[in-house]
Amino acid sequence: MEFRVGIDIGGTNIKSAIFSNSGDIEYKYECSTNSFNAPYEKYLEFIIEELLKGSGKALKDISSVGIGCPGIVDSKKKVVEYACNLNLNDTKFAKKLEENIKIPVYIENDANAAVFGEYKYNMLNSKDSDIADSMVLLTLGTGVGGGHILNGKIYKGFNFGALEVGHMVIEEGGRQCNCGRKGCFETYASVTGLINTAMEVALRYKNSVLHSMLKDGEKITGEAIFNAVKLKDAAAVEAFNIFIKYLGVGVANIINILQPRCLVLGGGLSASGDIMLSPLKELVDKFDYARSLKDRCKVLISKIGNYAGVLGAAFLHEIQDKYLI
Amino acid sequence: MEFRVGIDIGGTNIKSAIFSNSGDIEYKYECSTNSFNAPYEKYLEFIIEELLKGSGKALKDISSVGIGCPGIVDSKKKVVEYACNLNLNDTKFAKKLEENIKIPVYIENDANAAVFGEYKYNMLNSKDSDIADSMVLLTLGTGVGGGHILNGKIYKGFNFGALEVGHMVIEEGGRQCNCGRKGCFETYASVTGLINTAMEVALRYKNSVLHSMLKDGEKITGEAIFNAVKLKDAAAVEAFNIFIKYLGVGVANIINILQPRCLVLGGGLSASGDIMLSPLKELVDKFDYARSLKDRCKVLISKIGNYAGVLGAAFLHEIQDKYLI
Repeated sequence: MEFRVGIDIGGTNIKSAIFSNSGDIEYKYECSTNSFNAPYEKYLEFIIEELLKGSGKALKDISSVGIGCPGIVDSKKKVVEYACNLNLNDTKFAKKLEENIKIPVYIENDANAAVFGEYKYNMLNSKDSDIADSMVLLTLGTGVGGGHILNGKIYKGFNFGALEVGHMVIEEGGRQCNCGRKGCFETYASVTGLINTAMEVALRYKNSVLHSMLKDGEKITGEAIFNAVKLKDAAAVEAFNIFIKYLGVGVANIINILQPRCLVLGGGLSASGDIMLSPLKELVDKFDYARSLKDRCKVLISKIGNYAGVLGAAFLHEIQDKYLI
Repeated sequence: MEFRVGIDIGGTNIKSAIFSNSGDIEYKYECSTNSFNAPYEKYLEFIIEELLKGSGKALKDISSVGIGCPGIVDSKKKVVEYACNLNLNDTKFAKKLEENIKIPVYIENDANAAVFGEYKYNMLNSKDSDIADSMVLLTLGTGVGGGHILNGKIYKGFNFGALEVGHMVIEEGGRQCNCGRKGCFETYASVTGLINTAMEVALRYKNSVLHSMLKDGEKITGEAIFNAVKLKDAAAVEAFNIFIKYLGVGVANIINILQPRCLVLGGGLSASGDIMLSPLKELVDKFDYARSLKDRCKVLISKIGNYAGVLGAAFLHEIQDKYLI
């Protein structure tokens, strides 16, 4: 039997898993992205060893390794051209890893891997109408990424740089982004953006849960904010409303430009489920330019959430030559 | 010999022409959009009669009529689903025109027609590297529209609503747009947007050419602003710089999302040529997420400017079934 390794390099954590060829998870491994430094391929080899140990497999059982990485990834040359959040430039670790382990290694933009994972999961497991050949997935994590499946192919752009939706300015002159621009979508609608908003808002609500967390030097996380929202903490509710407002602006923009049959919210924030989805859908209903049409883009939460990227990465060999420029 | 009629319904003017089958213009006719009211098909019949009279042709010489219309156009059902600037909703004039004149009538979003016109013109006339199977065209006119040719097909979105780039918010809470949102790209980067900016700025420059035009009740047009820029009129220069800033934000956003091989500026404002192109390219160079790559999207001015839409409309029969959802 053949097995596949998928590795999803996120802004905060690296998720990985070993899959059977039919898509079942054999073993998972997760670690911090902080340790992901040059020589990058060595750290990836360490992750693969952990997966082999945990699953009781050997390197010879593995048919391929797939990697999802933020930024512009030339999947043909197997080079990370540019990733602002990880500070990668023309980085060739995938090629080196392949030389070292002597197994085919595939690499793809993380959100492209995730949209393919979501698509594959739907194709494998579901018979409902959410399966779509025209699907955009947003990864709402440390940053915001985007992937687009069109007629069963990944839309990569002629230079592999398409769907950098996180770097769409939605507030001219707004928050400074790592990419050099101001007011990018990801400075508001990522976990980082939500946390920054919450910290700004908390200063104005002295009696709020978030304010006392700040005072006590506790780290404000996305999870803490969502928990405080459930408790109706005034600061958390205001921060969340601001977050939803900007998320709505960006999502409606993407729908107006791409009009996919469905737009799926993935990444860490997708775990919040309906708390995020339901007010977002209200905004999109108001702002989708196609709102008077019967056929409208469906906004959904990912069915596999944070694991879409790992699943997609593990099966990148299936979609290697299927892309639209 | 066969002839083709193309009609491009703009926010301000309707342009039309009769073409030989090889793409040469036989006769042009232009009129104001103000007279384009229900029953719309009657007005289109009047335009066709003018073209026939002017060119000395008869209806039997015409093989097809193609129409470009702003907004969401279901080119299969031949219905204008929604166009905010013309206040059209579920409008079926193309079908009615076809019934009346008994000649095939095709209808398409105006910017889709324009990008196809630009593509066709390049294919017919040019052997240089600007010919691209991956081309986005922006129509900078009364509003801002977008069309996308991908592998020789028009990317329409699953419900024909894609590439409504004019309705991408680039300044959250900014200028009110006809579509109901605030801060849309077209409220800043269209002719209308430029004029609104110029009128705001002129109030602050009492000695400016623009201010005296306002005082004298003269209509400030896009052309007047560009002329004043050439004279280094302080108000015009400031208004123009603001316009370029927002145009740069929107263009860089579109490139970051679609990464086409080239992005072409069309519509009325494309007549300004290098005055607009050269500062815009400087901004895009700074803000394109793929700026460190060798392969970057080229930003160009349309080779046929305002006539791309009419040419594309006249030859819509060639691309009827060639579209990507």
